[in-house]
Amino acid sequence: MKREKLILVTNDDGIEAKGLESLIKVVREFGKVIVVAPEKSRSGMSHAITMKYPLRIETVKKEEGLEIYSCNGTPVDCVKLALHQLLDGKPDMLVSGINHGSNASVSVVYSGTMAAAIEGGINKVPSIGFSLLDYSAEADFNTAGIYVRRIMKKVFMNGIQKGICLNVNIPVGKEDELKGIKICRQTDGYWQEEFDKRIDPGKREYYWLTGYFNNSEPLADDTDEWALLNKFVSVVPIQIDFTSYSRMEELKKWKF
Amino acid sequence: MKREKLILVTNDDGIEAKGLESLIKVVREFGKVIVVAPEKSRSGMSHAITMKYPLRIETVKKEEGLEIYSCNGTPVDCVKLALHQLLDGKPDMLVSGINHGSNASVSVVYSGTMAAAIEGGINKVPSIGFSLLDYSAEADFNTAGIYVRRIMKKVFMNGIQKGICLNVNIPVGKEDELKGIKICRQTDGYWQEEFDKRIDPGKREYYWLTGYFNNSEPLADDTDEWALLNKFVSVVPIQIDFTSYSRMEELKKWKF
Repeated sequence: MKREKLILVTNDDGIEAKGLESLIKVVREFGKVIVVAPEKSRSGMSHAITMKYPLRIETVKKEEGLEIYSCNGTPVDCVKLALHQLLDGKPDMLVSGINHGSNASVSVVYSGTMAAAIEGGINKVPSIGFSLLDYSAEADFNTAGIYVRRIMKKVFMNGIQKGICLNVNIPVGKEDELKGIKICRQTDGYWQEEFDKRIDPGKREYYWLTGYFNNSEPLADDTDEWALLNKFVSVVPIQIDFTSYSRMEELKKWKF
Repeated sequence: MKREKLILVTNDDGIEAKGLESLIKVVREFGKVIVVAPEKSRSGMSHAITMKYPLRIETVKKEEGLEIYSCNGTPVDCVKLALHQLLDGKPDMLVSGINHGSNASVSVVYSGTMAAAIEGGINKVPSIGFSLLDYSAEADFNTAGIYVRRIMKKVFMNGIQKGICLNVNIPVGKEDELKGIKICRQTDGYWQEEFDKRIDPGKREYYWLTGYFNNSEPLADDTDEWALLNKFVSVVPIQIDFTSYSRMEELKKWKF
């Protein structure tokens, strides 16, 4: 008899996010689900881990086929606790999200949602991060759910290739407005920071981090930003190993 | 007349770390130096950014050719503040470190030192992260300084290739004990977490994150862990763009 699939779910918007709830609903169709998610929003935490204060886990729900835990740590802490403390064996898949807001282009680097997927990849678990291009707490995840299902099915069917996880971004729109799935590369871009400089009541300066995304290249049709602008769901294979193999050979010629 | 070079320095061990002081000493030989570093240790912060509380900058020192600022944010916040707030133009180089402890293999993903270098790369600044394989606060950075100088010279001479930054790890040892510089790939490995589970006075469980590094592969002589074990300084070119180009073509055959 085939063992029931076990799927680990996390996010960075926190245990109460609508995107997480929407993801759990779809994922339960595939097997047993364990959720370990931050107790509050930990967006922009990237791959940060917690070493200076103790981590705590709270049981939120336990029912047939679904266990939900919240944790006071980062998304990567949640994955580590799940893989090395809460679970007996490796899950068959890790899914992270559905993030409220884009993680396309360079945003992948700052994203806790994608860091969780990368952490899954480091631990050889097939991992996918999902994000919807809508930052609002009340975003509509119905169409996103359809694509989550399609992509998870494909990954269960084909397995995920060694050394990668998937960064999936989904445009806003009804099902018939989206044009399908496109395999893309990450757009070359950066966040243009415009720090909001203010003065506190004690006359000391402080700064709020604000900014907007900028492309560093014209939008070619193989980039994720192009795909999203044109209402495709973008899928970028993310390299778990950060080595630039193409540059290694050049560097060897430097003769240190 | 050639403009004097401007070098941005940061780290993740904080403004008072000996590794930072050692780095500043070497870097000043190359030009004007501006340091923006976390006010206290922010190890393991990876690429985290601060959006929920305001950032503050304190002037630590201003003298001819050297300005030092501390910041209450993460290493990446420091780089962003430097590039987008404190500096008029782009620096000629960003150097981060010298980290107290290894950032070889998969540790690159968790490292604030290396996240700062990656952030430099995203902003098209030639960037290098330096780490010494000694976690102690009183580590001896003399030999490391020799390699920092050699590698910075080479990078100023050759320029850094598009799309990468450098992850430099330096073994412990006197100058004549080290065997030179080796261009490497990142070893496939992971941190085996062994959470230290305890009970607090209120009878509630909590966990300390602990663990040790594990290779996921036998140590081939092109890996950074092999190089370091054999007393070479390892230089890994780190890809700023996270796309796995080799997997993109395979994925396109999936026919979603």
